[in-house]
Amino acid sequence: VTNETLPPGTLMAAELAEQPEVLGRLVARHAADRELVRAIVPRAHAGTVLLARGSSDNVAVYGRYLIEMASRRPAGLAAPSVHTRYQADVDYAGYLVVALSQSGATPEVVETAAAMRRAGAVVIGIANEPGSPLTEVCDLSLLTEAGPELGVPATKTVTAQMLAVAAIAGAYDSELVAAADLAALPGAVTSLLADSGPPGASGPAEAVAGRWADARRLVVTGRGLAYAAALETALKIKETAQVHAEGLSSADLLHGPIAALDSRLPVLLVSGGERFAADETALTARLSAEGVPFAVCGSGPDAELPLPAGSSEITAPILAVVRGQQFALASSLRRGLNPDAPAGLSKVTATH
Amino acid sequence: VTNETLPPGTLMAAELAEQPEVLGRLVARHAADRELVRAIVPRAHAGTVLLARGSSDNVAVYGRYLIEMASRRPAGLAAPSVHTRYQADVDYAGYLVVALSQSGATPEVVETAAAMRRAGAVVIGIANEPGSPLTEVCDLSLLTEAGPELGVPATKTVTAQMLAVAAIAGAYDSELVAAADLAALPGAVTSLLADSGPPGASGPAEAVAGRWADARRLVVTGRGLAYAAALETALKIKETAQVHAEGLSSADLLHGPIAALDSRLPVLLVSGGERFAADETALTARLSAEGVPFAVCGSGPDAELPLPAGSSEITAPILAVVRGQQFALASSLRRGLNPDAPAGLSKVTATH
Repeated sequence: VTNETLPPGTLMAAELAEQPEVLGRLVARHAADRELVRAIVPRAHAGTVLLARGSSDNVAVYGRYLIEMASRRPAGLAAPSVHTRYQADVDYAGYLVVALSQSGATPEVVETAAAMRRAGAVVIGIANEPGSPLTEVCDLSLLTEAGPELGVPATKTVTAQMLAVAAIAGAYDSELVAAADLAALPGAVTSLLADSGPPGASGPAEAVAGRWADARRLVVTGRGLAYAAALETALKIKETAQVHAEGLSSADLLHGPIAALDSRLPVLLVSGGERFAADETALTARLSAEGVPFAVCGSGPDAELPLPAGSSEITAPILAVVRGQQFALASSLRRGLNPDAPAGLSKVTATH
Repeated sequence: VTNETLPPGTLMAAELAEQPEVLGRLVARHAADRELVRAIVPRAHAGTVLLARGSSDNVAVYGRYLIEMASRRPAGLAAPSVHTRYQADVDYAGYLVVALSQSGATPEVVETAAAMRRAGAVVIGIANEPGSPLTEVCDLSLLTEAGPELGVPATKTVTAQMLAVAAIAGAYDSELVAAADLAALPGAVTSLLADSGPPGASGPAEAVAGRWADARRLVVTGRGLAYAAALETALKIKETAQVHAEGLSSADLLHGPIAALDSRLPVLLVSGGERFAADETALTARLSAEGVPFAVCGSGPDAELPLPAGSSEITAPILAVVRGQQFALASSLRRGLNPDAPAGLSKVTATH
C-alpha cells in the first residue's frame, strides 16, 4: 500500500487519531524521564541550546521558551552552519544541548550534536526510534516512540516531541510543568479530534478551511509559547495545501508587515491565553479596522478553532498544533490535494 | 517638508546615499569602540543574547552568528515575552546582552534590557542618538550617529547597526573582524550606489525589479551571515513595495517549503560566498528544474545583484543589505508607490 493508492488524507487522519495514545505513553513516562534528565544536566548551568531543522525547529521554539522559563538560564536556537560551514570552535562547557530529529538521522543535526558534545555540552537527543545515529552521539535519548509516520507531513511525532521537551523543562521546574496538566492532555486531544478529522467530516477546522478556500496566502501568528504553534501550523499548511503560509510573531506583525496585509490575506491568530489578552485585542481590532479576515485558535469564547477551556499554558500550544494539523488537512482536501503525499503533487506552473 | 510632498523615493534614495559617510565614521571609531567593549565584557563569558525588534531583529541575526564565532561561546536571540509577559526570573550572570533599537526608545527592548542587567548581564546598547532611554539602562552605548532617518523604512541605521555589532565581535577576535576589511567597506558601498539608487536610474536593482514587476510574493533566502541580509531584504520589500516577501533559511527552503513555490513566486538568493557554494548550486539547480524564477545577490559571475569581488565574509552581508535596499526602492517606485511614506499608502482592499 503506497500513499497514492489510499483515499487522500487517509494516512494523515489516521496519524492524527493516534495522538492521544502516543501522548498518553509519554505522559505515563514523564516522571521517569524527568529523573533521567535531572541526573545528567550540567550543575553549573550556563544555558541551553536547541538544535533542529524543519518541523523539529518549531518544537525547538517551544522548548526555547519553556526550558528558559523552567531552568531560569537563557535558552536559544543553534545555528548549525557556525559549526558545519564556518568550522568555528565554540566552547559549550556548562551547556545543555537538546537535539531534535524525528528520524534521528538528519546529518547536520547529528554532526552538530556530536561536535557540541565534544566541545563540552551535555546533549539530550529527541528522536522517534531507538538505534538511530542521533542516539549514539547523546548523553541521554528521549524517544518519542510514536510508531512509523507514513504520511509525509510530520504530525504525531511533532506533538510527541513537544511532550519530550516538556519532560526536560519539568526536570528543572515541576511546578511550571505540572504532572496534573500533562495528565489531562491526551483526553483533551481526544475531544478535539472528536469534532473533526476524518476526511469528509465537518467540524471547526473544516469550517475555517471552507471560508478561506480561495486564499493563496495566509499568515499564522502568535506570541510566547503560542508562537511555536503558529510556526508549526504555517509549515503544515505550506506542506499540505500549497498555500504560501507564513508564521509571524504577533509582536512583529503589529509593526511593519501589517501594511502588506489585505482582504485576500487572512490571518490565523493562535492565542497565548490570558497573559496576551491585551496584545491580542489590539491586533484583532486593527485587523478588523483594516478589513483583514481573521480567525482565532484558543480557549476564548470567540475562537473559531476552539481549545478546551482550562487548558494549561504548557499544554495549550500542543492542542493548538493539533488544531493546526486539522486545519491543514481540511485545507488540503478542500483544494483537491492529497496531504499524505504532497511530494507527488504536480506543481502549479502558471503560464501567465 | 513632509514625506508626501517630495517626489516618491527622494528620502529613501538620499538616505541610501548617506551610507558611505555614516559607515566611514563608524570605521574610524572601530578600534576605539573595540577597546570600550573589551573593558566591560564578562570575564567568565557564559554566552551572548541579542535583544531587538523589527529591522533591528535582522541585525541581531547577523550579530548572533558573528559574535558566536568571535567570542567562541554560544549566542542567541532574546524572547522578550519571557520577561515582559511571563515574568520569568532568569539569571543572566556571565552574559553579554546586546540591545538594539534605532530610536533607543522601543519600550519592550528598554524594559527587557534593564531587567537583564538587574539579573546579572553586562548590557551594550546600540542606538542612533545620545540620551535615549536605552542608553540609560546600559553598561556601554555604541551610538550609530547616522543622523535623523526621515524615510519610514530604516536603511542607513541598519547598516550602521551592523558595523556597531562588528565592533563587539572585533573585541573578541580582531583577526575574524579585520580592520582592513572594514576600511574597504565605505568605498564598496559607494561603488554599489553609483550604479543605481536615484529614482529613475537604471542599474541592476532596477533590472531585477522590472523583471519581477508583477510578482505579488517573493522569497528571499540565504544561510549563515547572509541569512540576516535575506531577512532584512524581505522586510524592506514588504514595507515599501506591498509585496508579500518572506525571508527563509536556504537550508530549510530545500526541504518542505519548496513545494509551495511556483513560477509566480520568484526567489532572491543572497549568496553566503565560497563556504556555501555547494549548497547554493544545489538550490539554484532545483529552482531551475522546477521553473522557479530566481536571481542571485553576491560576488560570483552570475549575480544579477553584484557585490564587489573580494568583499570579506564579514562585510558582504552589509553590502547585500544595501543591494536589498536598492531593490526595495526600485520595486516600490516601479509599482507606483512611495517608499518614503508607506504608512500613508491606501491599502489594497479587494472586493473579490
